[in-house]
Amino acid sequence: MRLDHIAIAVSDLDAAEAAYKALGLPWQGREEVSSQKVMTSIFQSGDSRVELITPTAEDSPISAFLLKKGSGLHHLCFEVADLESEIVRLKAQGFRVLNETPRPGVEGSRVAFLHPASTAGVLVEIAQKQIGK
Amino acid sequence: MRLDHIAIAVSDLDAAEAAYKALGLPWQGREEVSSQKVMTSIFQSGDSRVELITPTAEDSPISAFLLKKGSGLHHLCFEVADLESEIVRLKAQGFRVLNETPRPGVEGSRVAFLHPASTAGVLVEIAQKQIGK
Repeated sequence: MRLDHIAIAVSDLDAAEAAYKALGLPWQGREEVSSQKVMTSIFQSGDSRVELITPTAEDSPISAFLLKKGSGLHHLCFEVADLESEIVRLKAQGFRVLNETPRPGVEGSRVAFLHPASTAGVLVEIAQKQIGK
Repeated sequence: MRLDHIAIAVSDLDAAEAAYKALGLPWQGREEVSSQKVMTSIFQSGDSRVELITPTAEDSPISAFLLKKGSGLHHLCFEVADLESEIVRLKAQGFRVLNETPRPGVEGSRVAFLHPASTAGVLVEIAQKQIGK
């Protein structure tokens, strides 16, 4: 499983974007994910990516995270070839799958999240890329 | 800059290791980093890695993290070609470098950390691999 991206929740997207540009990561651009009420800003890093995410609405799940914890590491995402069969496999392994019906992610992907209780306190996303990408 | 690894602080290494094996990541083995008083358990993921880290002493920096926050995402590490010149460059860019004298990391690497205040709340490690690796 390739680490597709790590996501960092940020309260100030412009400032965080400037910091990660200064750090030296190549910037790929921004993309809004309306289903999750976030704006993302994406940096390439090896064959993985760093995604800065900031809420676009007060009822975004990222708003609650920022209010409780402030800016910081939010989740990991691994790429899978077949999301539905991975959901079945992971449930059988005892993982708590939060989205049995996949949700739309960035760049036309489909995604599901695993509850942190079954992954050592880490919110884990699994994503299947859009066919043809 | 390649994302070398993401580190997850865990209170129960055996349980976390079993979870990430079940998730489907290829396991690389364990390595103790005595300079940081941690045991690491390493999984490959694309050209990056997931490292589970657990304290081997009560005064390990990871002990304090776990006491305050519990198991969860701890830091990101990016590979650099020349650690000393990166430290100089990042300081000039305004980053707070926590280790002006590099410390030993896993697999003979040398590492330095950046304070989360300058990287959107994320503890960032930069690492130069051992020559010949």
